[in-house]
Amino acid sequence: MSSHTLGPPRAASSPLALREIDEWHDEADVIVVGYGGAGACAAIEAARTGVDTLVLERASGGGGTTAMAAGHIYLGGGTRVQKACGYEDSAENLLRYLEASADDPDPEKFRLYAEGSVAHFEWLESLDIPFNDSIHEARTNMQQTDECLLWSGNEKAWPFCEKATPAPRGHKVAREGEAGPHLFAKLDEAARAAGARIQSDTRVLTLVIADGGQVVGLVARQDREVRAFRARRGVILCAGGYAMDEKMFTRHIPRLAGRVQAIGNPYDDGAGLRMGLAARGAGIHLDDYHITLPFYPPSSLTYGILVNAQGQRFVAEDAYHGRIGEIASRQPQGTVYLIVDEPSYGRPELDGFELAATEESIADLERSLELPDHALQHTVDYYNEGARQGRDPLLHKQPNWLRPIVDGPFAAVECSLGKAPYMAFSLGGLWTKASGEVLTEDGQAVEGLYAAGRNSCGIARSAEGYASGTCIGDATFFGRLAGGSAAARAAAG
Amino acid sequence: MSSHTLGPPRAASSPLALREIDEWHDEADVIVVGYGGAGACAAIEAARTGVDTLVLERASGGGGTTAMAAGHIYLGGGTRVQKACGYEDSAENLLRYLEASADDPDPEKFRLYAEGSVAHFEWLESLDIPFNDSIHEARTNMQQTDECLLWSGNEKAWPFCEKATPAPRGHKVAREGEAGPHLFAKLDEAARAAGARIQSDTRVLTLVIADGGQVVGLVARQDREVRAFRARRGVILCAGGYAMDEKMFTRHIPRLAGRVQAIGNPYDDGAGLRMGLAARGAGIHLDDYHITLPFYPPSSLTYGILVNAQGQRFVAEDAYHGRIGEIASRQPQGTVYLIVDEPSYGRPELDGFELAATEESIADLERSLELPDHALQHTVDYYNEGARQGRDPLLHKQPNWLRPIVDGPFAAVECSLGKAPYMAFSLGGLWTKASGEVLTEDGQAVEGLYAAGRNSCGIARSAEGYASGTCIGDATFFGRLAGGSAAARAAAG
Repeated sequence: MSSHTLGPPRAASSPLALREIDEWHDEADVIVVGYGGAGACAAIEAARTGVDTLVLERASGGGGTTAMAAGHIYLGGGTRVQKACGYEDSAENLLRYLEASADDPDPEKFRLYAEGSVAHFEWLESLDIPFNDSIHEARTNMQQTDECLLWSGNEKAWPFCEKATPAPRGHKVAREGEAGPHLFAKLDEAARAAGARIQSDTRVLTLVIADGGQVVGLVARQDREVRAFRARRGVILCAGGYAMDEKMFTRHIPRLAGRVQAIGNPYDDGAGLRMGLAARGAGIHLDDYHITLPFYPPSSLTYGILVNAQGQRFVAEDAYHGRIGEIASRQPQGTVYLIVDEPSYGRPELDGFELAATEESIADLERSLELPDHALQHTVDYYNEGARQGRDPLLHKQPNWLRPIVDGPFAAVECSLGKAPYMAFSLGGLWTKASGEVLTEDGQAVEGLYAAGRNSCGIARSAEGYASGTCIGDATFFGRLAGGSAAARAAAG
Repeated sequence: MSSHTLGPPRAASSPLALREIDEWHDEADVIVVGYGGAGACAAIEAARTGVDTLVLERASGGGGTTAMAAGHIYLGGGTRVQKACGYEDSAENLLRYLEASADDPDPEKFRLYAEGSVAHFEWLESLDIPFNDSIHEARTNMQQTDECLLWSGNEKAWPFCEKATPAPRGHKVAREGEAGPHLFAKLDEAARAAGARIQSDTRVLTLVIADGGQVVGLVARQDREVRAFRARRGVILCAGGYAMDEKMFTRHIPRLAGRVQAIGNPYDDGAGLRMGLAARGAGIHLDDYHITLPFYPPSSLTYGILVNAQGQRFVAEDAYHGRIGEIASRQPQGTVYLIVDEPSYGRPELDGFELAATEESIADLERSLELPDHALQHTVDYYNEGARQGRDPLLHKQPNWLRPIVDGPFAAVECSLGKAPYMAFSLGGLWTKASGEVLTEDGQAVEGLYAAGRNSCGIARSAEGYASGTCIGDATFFGRLAGGSAAARAAAG
């Protein structure tokens, strides 16, 4: 079929009917849309079963957002690295933690992830992805070293520390600096070794759907032509979130639109998600996102306190920056300041943060910030009184981060939504089974359609509970399951 | 066509293809699904253009959630009643208020609603729907009298009072008690007078879709048969929200599932919404809801203060109970108490609320509630100091509701999520133009498909900004537009 017969390219939300396809340009058992962490793992597992697996990637090379990341994978339950570093963890403990992190912990996905976490770590190692038996203990967003473990979530912070025994679970691939590229290079190697055919510079436009609603292929722009590709067993959508599509971001997350920096790769435009929705897949938590307020490092800022326009504290400042970002962004009018004294400040540079005020006394700081009379003074006095006793009766910041705020000058770092460098990306996606099968609003599977990574709604379900490494953890873990499921489906005609 | 040829009833999310329909049982230019406030108004306007209009209603009679309501319609801009009662309002002022109430104020819908509000009031009056020139000044959820105006939102509360000149806009239909039934009876009369054919006991199952994606009819269960109905110009989905469908509620609003009472009529099961999604309509803000904490009347409880588990105040207590419910439900662990003294208490009965504690002093109350030491005492002292001066520097409760909390005994009313009688319903729906046309995720209209009321996402977009009467206001206003739009569409073959 020439591109001519397909007419002008369709929007992602306008699928083609099978009967509109005169000729297939190519076909495969399984077609994977998008070649990031989820797509690569789906391709590896599909191809390893021996079925013909074709990956279509819009960019000139694979990697997606996975290859832009620091390279943390959230794993636990007692991995080799956890044990080597002296941390106890178990599948049950990991599950308790994950369940505490979400309002909506999909029972099957969360259980499988917790139970399969150690095996997933071993699988990654089997692909020659290296992890050192070491830990980076400092509180930071990302270690620049090749040390492995990082406390990359809220494990040690209240109330999580009461719900599951704290264990570090961010497993960074053993590379200095950003390890995402190396992680992806190894996944890519494995996919090719397994026999997956990878075609880049190929923009999938929309799905092809048979009369009964089954997904039987797709249409893509490749070599300047619009071409139809038949998928005998299934199409797996792994094309990433929608953070970079301004329209979708504004439509689904209006509260944050224009007030945060969207992060992701340029092709995180939601096209895969829109295709899935148009094939009758249900979208769940499309309004959900991860947001972060990366106010540390330096970790000494954790000795400070975060206050709102009422001069009240509202979150334990030793929580993960994602949880803090979410709760901070919901304070009245989004107004938030980080209050620190001289010994804790020591910020070499502000990284996009501005000083709202610096004063010699808390009373003066309160006036400069136009906070209600005495409100900040009371908050600081109350905090200091507890800190001297090693307690935070209000919000349970852990004792190691408690230090009275007494030595001026005092600084207020601007952390208000719209003024501080908040960053966000989308977490909502297609409603899928753990197998990757896409479900309709009535809970029926859309035959022939699978999704993983941020085209699905995975184990990362809220900024309040987010931990670094859950998106890549989820994408690689459930990408594998989707690849296996699609490959195992009976081939059409 | 007999019901036999259609096979077993499809789920709402499984549309039928036109080619699967052998014979139409009936046809009309416009078919309205659901006969509540939105459906009735759509039917009136469609039928009045002279086109054949058929309404299919699942229950044995019309009314939907509109007929269960108190009968407030949120209107402003200078209605006859507003003027008679001495309140100034304008379309611009109403628009400013509405825009302040939503994160995502759809520009076209909000503008049209504000500009057309007076005319909509007059249209309702032209249907013999009565409104008295009177106001019920007391702070309450619903006046039992036939007085018209009620302050049914956050107009007088901060920060809304600074964004738009306060005006009362809840217009109650002139009936004592619940006026929803009378409102609907008049809409029903008008629809029948206009020539709309109303068929009840008819459960619409799913839509019928032509090859190009156009909606051309639907399939319904009627008289124990599954019957196909052709819509020459359009189908208008007006079948209500999904609050009563436990699965959808749990899937989309997990944070509240099992912790609030869902409100609506038993058929608010989201079937209309699911049909629209399956026809490639985009769902927007499906996770959004209205929640309320109806802690007043008696209005004297407004003299109290709401505090969280940190003993902090967090919202102006003179805000609308919806705004209070939303912000309260998001406090840490959902823990909230209403603190009142003896003169303000006077609650004849608790209406589902329980007393968490009563004590002779605030210090004792603090201990009973296990709040952090001195936290509540400080909050009350600080509040009292301001109240004596007629100010609330923290949260700007208006001076008329400020009175020091000094005369014991003191009570703490349990307002925690999961323990207090919170109520909620869904606000998310299909993404529609003001005309009612349903849009895909790519912003293209789904030909032949319209939606209004809670099958669409309307002007009520968040609990924080909700005002009573916006749902019926929106349903009737945009129901009319959808009826007119569908009737004006060129008839298919």
